[in-house]
Amino acid sequence: MQSLLNRQVLLRRRPTGEPKVSDFELAEAPVPPPGDGEFLCRTIYLSLDPYMRGRMNDAKSYAQPVELGTPMVGGAVSEVIASNNAAFPTGSFVVGPTGWQAYALSRGAGARKLDPKAAPLSTALGVLGMPGMTAYVGLLDIGQPKPGETVVVSAAAGAVGSVVGQLAKIRGCRAVGVAGSEAKCELVVKELGFDACVNYRTEPLLSALQKACPKGIDVYFDNVGGDVLAAVLRLINQFARIPLCGLISQYNATELPPGPNFLPILVNRALIHGFIVSDHGDRFADFHRDCAQWLREGRIRYREDVVVGLENAPEAFIGLLRGRNVGKLVVKVGDDPTVKSC
Amino acid sequence: MQSLLNRQVLLRRRPTGEPKVSDFELAEAPVPPPGDGEFLCRTIYLSLDPYMRGRMNDAKSYAQPVELGTPMVGGAVSEVIASNNAAFPTGSFVVGPTGWQAYALSRGAGARKLDPKAAPLSTALGVLGMPGMTAYVGLLDIGQPKPGETVVVSAAAGAVGSVVGQLAKIRGCRAVGVAGSEAKCELVVKELGFDACVNYRTEPLLSALQKACPKGIDVYFDNVGGDVLAAVLRLINQFARIPLCGLISQYNATELPPGPNFLPILVNRALIHGFIVSDHGDRFADFHRDCAQWLREGRIRYREDVVVGLENAPEAFIGLLRGRNVGKLVVKVGDDPTVKSC
Repeated sequence: MQSLLNRQVLLRRRPTGEPKVSDFELAEAPVPPPGDGEFLCRTIYLSLDPYMRGRMNDAKSYAQPVELGTPMVGGAVSEVIASNNAAFPTGSFVVGPTGWQAYALSRGAGARKLDPKAAPLSTALGVLGMPGMTAYVGLLDIGQPKPGETVVVSAAAGAVGSVVGQLAKIRGCRAVGVAGSEAKCELVVKELGFDACVNYRTEPLLSALQKACPKGIDVYFDNVGGDVLAAVLRLINQFARIPLCGLISQYNATELPPGPNFLPILVNRALIHGFIVSDHGDRFADFHRDCAQWLREGRIRYREDVVVGLENAPEAFIGLLRGRNVGKLVVKVGDDPTVKSC
Repeated sequence: MQSLLNRQVLLRRRPTGEPKVSDFELAEAPVPPPGDGEFLCRTIYLSLDPYMRGRMNDAKSYAQPVELGTPMVGGAVSEVIASNNAAFPTGSFVVGPTGWQAYALSRGAGARKLDPKAAPLSTALGVLGMPGMTAYVGLLDIGQPKPGETVVVSAAAGAVGSVVGQLAKIRGCRAVGVAGSEAKCELVVKELGFDACVNYRTEPLLSALQKACPKGIDVYFDNVGGDVLAAVLRLINQFARIPLCGLISQYNATELPPGPNFLPILVNRALIHGFIVSDHGDRFADFHRDCAQWLREGRIRYREDVVVGLENAPEAFIGLLRGRNVGKLVVKVGDDPTVKSC
């Protein structure tokens, strides 16, 4: 095999705010021949995805940051052009995490062989790859859409969002996209079959969403966070599910967003679940059995803040909201014959 | 039975912001005798709970608002003093939603008989009642605490929070409270056995929480929202769970909070779930089988935005974060031998 020259895009500087071209560096390096168990990949298609912005930061996250001076991480479709690995012979096509470079050595970690007759190779980076899988898991497993429900997805013309809306249609839902241009909205509705798409750059978000979702929102697949998330929350139905997939609107942010920051929820795969106790009546017997026993055993203690007289209830209630009471606030309205002295 | 005069606290005006005593009205009314199937309750203890603030508003929620001129809603412990209902005979004690009044008629809806020998009557409004049940369901079922994990609860000296921390200890967790006075923090730690308690009025929240939770936060049982929620989010561990029980900090608010408003999440019992596709590899085969078939059938379509040349990847990536591309963004780095013309 003739000696090959690799071309790579390295991370040169950690960006502050929006990345600049000068944060990257195009470099050349010789391509070493594959060692034992290795194979050499010639990159055909490199995937670009928003998550890569996070890898440019030197911050704790679910994945290691890219080290300065090394190639940017990324999935790519390649042709194997030399191989010492029987599972990935020369001439085969693979998708794997080979990064922003023209050639890469691999031992097969995270790599998967592709059948070029089954689908165009590039689909392994999109609809049949990580973005499609993200849409599938996030909508079907986490969003749990039911026929007749309304599913909203942001970044609807993107690699993930475009699949989310189509899966929602396949599941019998109303699919509503949010996107940032007329071209995107047209793609989403006319080509991909969504029921509606809101252009967040030209339409008033809340009223446009309201119009597009006359029966409210049951599932919001969020790729962007920020204003869209805030508007959607005002329109959610009972028992709505919000798979939090991305927060593109704040990836370039240099300051914390106002209010609670959802980024740690995403990065840590955390779960926020609103609940109302009256939905859980079936647990009352368990609760009462356990807590009554723990109370008898002294493993649970309690403190009461007793206000005497119904006429004092308003004042006591106002104090409750100010945090004035210590322990459970109770108004003694009448005589308790089970207690000797009061 | 002699004729009785009822005393009631009615809702007189819907409050704007913090309720005032003048938003309520103390009224008197005759007590009618119980009809068929009814029984007459003499209120002993009336429960005051933060949720009542929501009922004073004329807004869509999980429960009907209190109508102007009618008694405030609320749970109470009563003695049955006259009865035409065999299940609730005269002389028995009951807990039920009888409202802010000295006497109430009931048919038994939502009412439960109490055994005065089993526990003090007032506990039916607190540790053995709705607040205790809220702590039990919210922490154990929704929070799913595991031994060794760290559980944080806000309004820790309150009726719900005080039980949450004690349940966390019973489950083998580290229990950390957040409360608004030294007296509350002392109660929580010294009397109720929490491991630590942060006074949010006098300590810097983030650093105090960090110190109290050296291994991060696995479960946050939220009663207050606002600044405490924002601080906790910065300290959550992977796969943290946040049962959202109350948002007391904003119940009196007259403006929307900055950033996304969590109130609709609570009221609608919604679920926000951050996820990362790489945690869900076990679904890849299902995804690929389904989406490949839908792709062949034309039920899923896709659009690609192809940029040619590795050297253009940085610019294309910057554009991706700005929303410049339409469809899946891919960089063509090398020749694709499976496509005839490019």
